Amino acid sequence: MTLVASDIPHRRYNPLRQSWVLVSPHRAKRPWQGQQEEPTKDTKPEYDDKCYLCPRNARINGEMNPDYKDTFVFENDFSAVFEKTAEVEKVVEEAQKEHTESTALDLDLLRKEDVFGYCQVICFSPKHNVTLATMTVEQIEKVIETWQKMYTEAQSRGIKYSLIFENKGATMGCSNPHAHGQVWNTSIVPEEPQMEFDSLKKYKDEKNRDLLVDYVNLEMSKNERIVYQNASFLVVVPYWAVWPFETMIVSKERVSSIKKLTKEQVQHLADAISVITKKYDKLFNTSFPYSMGIHQSFVDVENCPYEHLRLLFYPPLLRSASVKKFQVGFEMLGMPQRDITAEGAAKRLYDL
Amino acid sequence: MTLVASDIPHRRYNPLRQSWVLVSPHRAKRPWQGQQEEPTKDTKPEYDDKCYLCPRNARINGEMNPDYKDTFVFENDFSAVFEKTAEVEKVVEEAQKEHTESTALDLDLLRKEDVFGYCQVICFSPKHNVTLATMTVEQIEKVIETWQKMYTEAQSRGIKYSLIFENKGATMGCSNPHAHGQVWNTSIVPEEPQMEFDSLKKYKDEKNRDLLVDYVNLEMSKNERIVYQNASFLVVVPYWAVWPFETMIVSKERVSSIKKLTKEQVQHLADAISVITKKYDKLFNTSFPYSMGIHQSFVDVENCPYEHLRLLFYPPLLRSASVKKFQVGFEMLGMPQRDITAEGAAKRLYDL
Ligand SMILES: O=P(O)(O)O[C@H]1O[C@H](CO)[C@@H](O)[C@H](O)[C@H]1O
Ligand SMILES: O=P(O)(O)O[C@H]1O[C@H](CO)[C@@H](O)[C@H](O)[C@H]1O
Repeated sequence: MTLVASDIPHRRYNPLRQSWVLVSPHRAKRPWQGQQEEPTKDTKPEYDDKCYLCPRNARINGEMNPDYKDTFVFENDFSAVFEKTAEVEKVVEEAQKEHTESTALDLDLLRKEDVFGYCQVICFSPKHNVTLATMTVEQIEKVIETWQKMYTEAQSRGIKYSLIFENKGATMGCSNPHAHGQVWNTSIVPEEPQMEFDSLKKYKDEKNRDLLVDYVNLEMSKNERIVYQNASFLVVVPYWAVWPFETMIVSKERVSSIKKLTKEQVQHLADAISVITKKYDKLFNTSFPYSMGIHQSFVDVENCPYEHLRLLFYPPLLRSASVKKFQVGFEMLGMPQRDITAEGAAKRLYDL
Repeated sequence: MTLVASDIPHRRYNPLRQSWVLVSPHRAKRPWQGQQEEPTKDTKPEYDDKCYLCPRNARINGEMNPDYKDTFVFENDFSAVFEKTAEVEKVVEEAQKEHTESTALDLDLLRKEDVFGYCQVICFSPKHNVTLATMTVEQIEKVIETWQKMYTEAQSRGIKYSLIFENKGATMGCSNPHAHGQVWNTSIVPEEPQMEFDSLKKYKDEKNRDLLVDYVNLEMSKNERIVYQNASFLVVVPYWAVWPFETMIVSKERVSSIKKLTKEQVQHLADAISVITKKYDKLFNTSFPYSMGIHQSFVDVENCPYEHLRLLFYPPLLRSASVKKFQVGFEMLGMPQRDITAEGAAKRLYDL
């Protein structure tokens, strides 16, 4: 094979995570005989009486869902964290008695901290057979407005970080195809947003400019990795993308949190979400799996001068509806690795 | 449900990676309706004429495998990195010309570096239907001795880090069931071993003791997370384990690299690998999928005073041969999360 410059393996730096990804563009050419994903079949009814997220149905804990008309929020029946109720507090105190007997070595090498909070589920639509990709822009606006309310609620419940995310598709560990997302509200800041906050702060403190504003302007001047844009948002395959068709929806001006979006910006964000999810579905002609999450201001800081709202889409598919990229041995034990360039991925998404 | 201290969600600190994992022990009780893995069927022949790893067969590039009797090593047909040949160097130079035209902002936000090296595949056995779990200890010794030779070879080929790993099972992106591992040799140190090296160095510089020697002794005195031990190695579910049944095989005394193992230590390591992989297979009565990798001294440092040989097993299965743990939305965008405690996992593995 004839080598060209863009074939040469290299690593790219993610200035937000302060980490690297190994890019091996020629690897996409290797044959694949491994595991195949099951593409989602598109034959779901609008209402499924066995679905615990459909309106008027019973959930796992026996509670009935209301006859909701747009979005519907409830607390996760198997939350990963608990609120600090009297009962929880009692158990925690007992556990702490044990902990004081620890030696200095324990405290160095067996460190732990309690984490409190609550987890919510948000149904995006009463209809069992839609996704963000097939919902209207107006319907997506309702989802964003619900996220805004959930964020505000977290502020009143003593939360430190509110991680809004969606796991879409069985491949991404989603156990119910009824379109829904989750919000995990915790008394700590999880590491990914913490690392990125640290980078945003460092950049601004050093240069008195915003990292992501600089990045947006740079991408707009290069025009090599842009997938879509409107007046308020840019959809870009980041230069340092790990997942094959990873994208970031980033506000063109710095907005610190979803709560701060104006009515018009909410419309523009809904438009951007609609466009990228539709493009994803078209790419391999399947309901495209991904994990998506929102990074933004810590909940307990009202006007953060550093944070910059962004939605990160991490989709696993590489070549078709059935062949995904595995981040496994080298990636888990070494560093992330990708098989196509960010520029190639962006071009394919842009062209759709 | 009645809460006990061990049910309280908490985060645990990994002093090697300097990172946290969220532990939500009660979550294992939630029902699972999501994706099911296909357990491996145990009906493979000893020789498969369609397998490109079996002796005497042709590989993808047309080369013939020798009639090998224990292990067999060849260079990966679709290597993630290239060696710096004259052809590669020419292309790289051209690409660099482009790069000098970059602005200061580019250099901050669009940073890249070329990475060189070579990737090898190591077949563990000529037999198509064995795995480390079903091989004899003597046969595993041959694998370790081959890793030793590969490490020494990397030292003579100008490599910085040699990442030895195995992806086992289709779930872990392995595309050929014939037992094999890989070694990716790179001109850079990947981030996982670099982070862990930094921690080992910091600990020793500050305390004049070895982090992993302290940790081994602590685990031996607590006896809560040990799965197995012999004279030279401890098999433990680390206090900070992320994957449900994650284990680490760690040398009881500090040995900097696989190359430094004595003949006897090689036997003991083979014994430890044999025991843990057999236990894994028994756990859910299936050929247990995992990614395993070796962290050890950088290849270009002969007698590193900090590094400490360890084998890390990252297996995804959570409850059965078909239900795995997904590290997805919250985990990718927040932090890793696990649903059972390290102590519970260790006890189950120990008891087998
Ligand atoms: O080279 P293989 O075994 O075909 O590929 C497997 O291992 C590699 C190294 O962890 C990964 O990059 C691939 O995604 C995975 O499918
Ligand atoms: O809560 P769910 O949707 O059932 O669970 C899914 O998302 C969670 C948050 O990313 C993960 O911890 C689970 O492994 C995954 O299966």
